[in-house]
Amino acid sequence: MNYLITNVHILTMDTAMTEYPRGSIAVRDGRIAAVGNFEITPEYMDYTVIDGDGAMAVPGFINAHTHSGMIPFRSLGDDCPDRLRRFLFPLENEAMTPELASLSARYACAEMLLAGTTCFVDMYYFEDHIARAVQQMGMRAFLGETVIGQPCCDSPEPHGGLEYGERFIREWAGDPLITPIIAPHATNTNSPEKIRESFELSQKYNVPMSMHVSEMDYEVTYFKEKFGKTPIAFLESLGVLSPQFIAAHCILAEEGDIEILARTGTAVAHCIGANTKSGKGVAPVKAMLASGVPVALGTDGPSSGNTLDTFTQFDLFAKFHKTANRDRALFPASEIVRLATSGAAKALGIHDSVGSLEPGKKADITLVETKSANMFPVFDPYAVLVYSAKSANVDTVFVDGRLLVRGKILTGTPLEIIREDLSLGMADFSGKAKILAEQI
Amino acid sequence: MNYLITNVHILTMDTAMTEYPRGSIAVRDGRIAAVGNFEITPEYMDYTVIDGDGAMAVPGFINAHTHSGMIPFRSLGDDCPDRLRRFLFPLENEAMTPELASLSARYACAEMLLAGTTCFVDMYYFEDHIARAVQQMGMRAFLGETVIGQPCCDSPEPHGGLEYGERFIREWAGDPLITPIIAPHATNTNSPEKIRESFELSQKYNVPMSMHVSEMDYEVTYFKEKFGKTPIAFLESLGVLSPQFIAAHCILAEEGDIEILARTGTAVAHCIGANTKSGKGVAPVKAMLASGVPVALGTDGPSSGNTLDTFTQFDLFAKFHKTANRDRALFPASEIVRLATSGAAKALGIHDSVGSLEPGKKADITLVETKSANMFPVFDPYAVLVYSAKSANVDTVFVDGRLLVRGKILTGTPLEIIREDLSLGMADFSGKAKILAEQI
Repeated sequence: MNYLITNVHILTMDTAMTEYPRGSIAVRDGRIAAVGNFEITPEYMDYTVIDGDGAMAVPGFINAHTHSGMIPFRSLGDDCPDRLRRFLFPLENEAMTPELASLSARYACAEMLLAGTTCFVDMYYFEDHIARAVQQMGMRAFLGETVIGQPCCDSPEPHGGLEYGERFIREWAGDPLITPIIAPHATNTNSPEKIRESFELSQKYNVPMSMHVSEMDYEVTYFKEKFGKTPIAFLESLGVLSPQFIAAHCILAEEGDIEILARTGTAVAHCIGANTKSGKGVAPVKAMLASGVPVALGTDGPSSGNTLDTFTQFDLFAKFHKTANRDRALFPASEIVRLATSGAAKALGIHDSVGSLEPGKKADITLVETKSANMFPVFDPYAVLVYSAKSANVDTVFVDGRLLVRGKILTGTPLEIIREDLSLGMADFSGKAKILAEQI
Repeated sequence: MNYLITNVHILTMDTAMTEYPRGSIAVRDGRIAAVGNFEITPEYMDYTVIDGDGAMAVPGFINAHTHSGMIPFRSLGDDCPDRLRRFLFPLENEAMTPELASLSARYACAEMLLAGTTCFVDMYYFEDHIARAVQQMGMRAFLGETVIGQPCCDSPEPHGGLEYGERFIREWAGDPLITPIIAPHATNTNSPEKIRESFELSQKYNVPMSMHVSEMDYEVTYFKEKFGKTPIAFLESLGVLSPQFIAAHCILAEEGDIEILARTGTAVAHCIGANTKSGKGVAPVKAMLASGVPVALGTDGPSSGNTLDTFTQFDLFAKFHKTANRDRALFPASEIVRLATSGAAKALGIHDSVGSLEPGKKADITLVETKSANMFPVFDPYAVLVYSAKSANVDTVFVDGRLLVRGKILTGTPLEIIREDLSLGMADFSGKAKILAEQI
């Protein structure tokens, strides 16, 4: 179906940061056919008109790091020390199933779509099941099967994800919306050999890889003590860093690390919400960007950051980086919006097809209404997006030219059903979770 | 009208942190008559039933510091250095009128009510006009006329707010919902004599006073250089600190200052969002609370924090303080919710009447729905309020037993009209604002 989106304030996020305070967008065959103040010629006669009613139109947001299978964990043990080993790993091993991962991913897609996110990078287990859920929901995604050096829910053997991941990549290669990737869990939860094998897999199939990097104090200490190197320097010595490597977190990246990331073209998925909720710190993003490191924003999983909402990251990004640098003028709002749109698309190597509203690009478009109480006045639309807007202001979302959200409601399966299915599917999980929670 | 709120998960925020996972609340003559799992006897037959539909019921939030007249400034010059002197003071002097302050306050009340806030502390100009708007909206508030040592929009003479403020206090003393207070602007924008006179006014009429304290680097430097004291030590030497003093910000409070605040019972209105958006820093709240300083949360004005939403402060509070202290277990979510409910009521000296859901207290009640995508699952309701919930999840709000929001909509004047009135009323302001913005 073709669409004519009218009466919108368009923030194209193109290189010139072109804005059309009152314009239109034509969507034809899944792509943007025209943007701005073009003439509405007879060729648009049979397009479905979407009245934007003064909303802002922005490129759909890209969430560069999450774990879509982890909705069931949200609000569980949030303020508990060593939550990873006390809640997450045990529950994953005891209660995570392919069905639950799939139901969770479906919910996560619903939540992201309703928040204006059109593309995400995932790292979880049972990624083939997750892929089918994502496909059903119509989102664009990079989906990575986790490789980890311990038994896990989808593999009784350590590093079983390598084999699982290769099958998964072969199955999904060439899909128009889903890019299968490989996702070794972290620098310190895989042997160097298996990190290298993950890289070789990514080379063999020409797919990206994503990994948690320089996130934990003990991770950095371990590498320095054992190898005399930071985790990032160690990855470079393994030869696995490249523009196809998406390094999540990098909170503890040092000066030399930033130089390595820049030189190798490695992208960083910066997860300010999750990193600060766990008190870990603020990644040196100012220095990264100054050195030319491609940086995107990630929410991290729904248990780490408790939200899959990019607006939350905008606000936190502004406040944490301005405060860390004691500079209120640092990172103007437009630059922050860029990190979740065109900047993220560049970081993921998909800027030819998405990340800005320009003719020829895939129609991944989010309309943010400006009628709600928090959205007035609008002197600077970027400031409104960063400091005031919330996911609840997202009115309409297109992915690949398909209308997936309209009037704040999913056009496909209703949220209530998605939620009820997940709620029923997590009965066993919830029972086990409550037992763990009572033991705190 | 009397109400029976049924089918709610009640977080009473009483001293024992009593919860009723599925309970009811009876509201009679503006007060809470019963809470929990009481028998629905025939006496409730003619009560209006409010089906909570599984929502969380919490005490209405208290916003301990804002400037309700400043909605017109939102999203203007956000990332600009020295915004105060380049945008705020000039525009206030040139374009703020009693009508605009009133329209803005009405909008601010609407925005706060829709975000579950039932009581706020205000500091602005034309406070008598603001009071009438707040009264019309039905909110509970502490409203303070600003005293400042320079000509301002409601007084051609410096410190004219003292006279204006006294008239205002006399006019509104004894109002059931509005407590008039006096609000000397800041330690460094008033002479010591006028700060002292403000204090004497507060003593004469037995009303609180509120002031910006230890917010700016240059403020602290000035006091140290001129008086050899921090601003807080200076205020103590003036004899103006007391449990009726609400000190906004206190970002730069030092160890000795915290001891002074604790000893004098001075309350702190901590504005984490505004303080970090401007890159100023994170107030030492952990130490304040450990020393027994009463701390409440404030959004600051709509131009400083860009939101009047307490949920935003919850999330920022958790993340900034956990990160500043490198401790993910610090400030469990329940403690953060306390700071905006019972803790805030204690800080403002109104805990006898509001701040918790207990029989006999005024019925200031907020229902937060749990149906939206961001609100599932709920293992820990406090964690959901702090890390996931947004103002858009607020479904129903009572102030003083009056139903002011139902189904996310104001029961009185519609938001659209409040907004249109403000939009029309700020035409002159907007014109001048745009000229200033273009000069950046």
